[in-house]
Amino acid sequence: MPTLILLRHGESDWNQKNLFTGWVDVDLTEKGRAEAVRGGELLAEQGVLPDVVYTSLLRRAINTANLALDKADRHWIPVHRDWRLNERHYGALQGLDKAATKEKYGEEQFMAWRRSYDTPPPPIEKGSEFSQDADPRYADIGGGPLTECLADVVARFVPYYEQAIVPDLKAGKTVLVAAHGNSLRALVKYLDGMSDDEVVGLNIPTGIPLRYDLDENLKPLVVGGEYLDPEAAAAGAAAVAAQGAKK
Amino acid sequence: MPTLILLRHGESDWNQKNLFTGWVDVDLTEKGRAEAVRGGELLAEQGVLPDVVYTSLLRRAINTANLALDKADRHWIPVHRDWRLNERHYGALQGLDKAATKEKYGEEQFMAWRRSYDTPPPPIEKGSEFSQDADPRYADIGGGPLTECLADVVARFVPYYEQAIVPDLKAGKTVLVAAHGNSLRALVKYLDGMSDDEVVGLNIPTGIPLRYDLDENLKPLVVGGEYLDPEAAAAGAAAVAAQGAKK
Repeated sequence: MPTLILLRHGESDWNQKNLFTGWVDVDLTEKGRAEAVRGGELLAEQGVLPDVVYTSLLRRAINTANLALDKADRHWIPVHRDWRLNERHYGALQGLDKAATKEKYGEEQFMAWRRSYDTPPPPIEKGSEFSQDADPRYADIGGGPLTECLADVVARFVPYYEQAIVPDLKAGKTVLVAAHGNSLRALVKYLDGMSDDEVVGLNIPTGIPLRYDLDENLKPLVVGGEYLDPEAAAAGAAAVAAQGAKK
Repeated sequence: MPTLILLRHGESDWNQKNLFTGWVDVDLTEKGRAEAVRGGELLAEQGVLPDVVYTSLLRRAINTANLALDKADRHWIPVHRDWRLNERHYGALQGLDKAATKEKYGEEQFMAWRRSYDTPPPPIEKGSEFSQDADPRYADIGGGPLTECLADVVARFVPYYEQAIVPDLKAGKTVLVAAHGNSLRALVKYLDGMSDDEVVGLNIPTGIPLRYDLDENLKPLVVGGEYLDPEAAAAGAAAVAAQGAKK
């Protein structure tokens, strides 16, 4: 039976500082590293052992996968990395303080940028401090997008899922996807058949593996999947939601 | 111009304890982790930036690659792992103390197992404490070998090099190979056209990237390659040689 495991990276330096991150390649904090190790412990304890791992090109997801897999004794499995798993590009907001941005633009605009399905932030200026247009890892895609809304993430990630990940699932493998809040929201929207409105209320906690057992048509047996630590996941999702509401 | 970079993992728990390791999947010590980070610093400082990395299936090589690439800001490159890059299987010696083994079997037998080209140690017993025959990562190859001499490592690694790594080199890529003392000795023997006798005297230090710039026929421009820190490499090679002589 194919199994898909989604793992959102833990706390990063910029989560801690409350800055918009997007494609800026910040590292995990010590807390974030501990979350990744705990994620690996949950995989090992429950015998949910990945056969292959997919990550974004960002070190907070890559290091989360490395730490979790090492803990679960699956550090040796094949690895695939792709920009299509990256966090949503946050455009000109990258590097800005979330609280200051909210104060400057107002609650409504702030929430539209953070949570609406199809409102991208203003594009980032090429060559500016927190842009990626000169980053060699994005040379093949012209430096990548200058901003994205969640709909853009769905449009880039779902075709990659179909083309790259689905063949592994059809072969009956257990696939780990180590990625980001918004790229995982995009995938869950697709898997669970959520509407554009429904996904606005979806919050995925950090560091807790979310398991989807899939039927022969790769439809989830349980809508919404099953967290390997449901109590911690509920608390984590509430914290993510509160962060959106307060800051 | 194609460039091949060889990186031997740093100190492991069992290096420190002076035990024969082979395919036993021990981790790096703190010193070994620092060596890997230093290797990554050397790559970054000298602008030798890998486009793709190959590792064994053993965590001391995998974590060395992860730490070095993270430090060099190349954590996002494609990854390939294969058992053919593994350390030489040390057979029934795996898990034994090197000094006690030398005392028990005598200097000559000890050195033959450690350094001769074609004398494998006695085979390990299947199902014994330090065997790998039930390890899922080797299920495709019947659990892997029960012992190996260096000639066996050449026989498994060189065809993989030709089939998997050479195409990347022919495409002009900079390829990092993160592996082990004896798998790297096997590759260097092949690259430098060393005889079976010559390779006996070859010592590769840990944690210092060894760079081979290759011509259009993938022959080394400089026989023996160039260490990114030649002074530290000379000291490290002498230490490896002394370890063989003393223990």
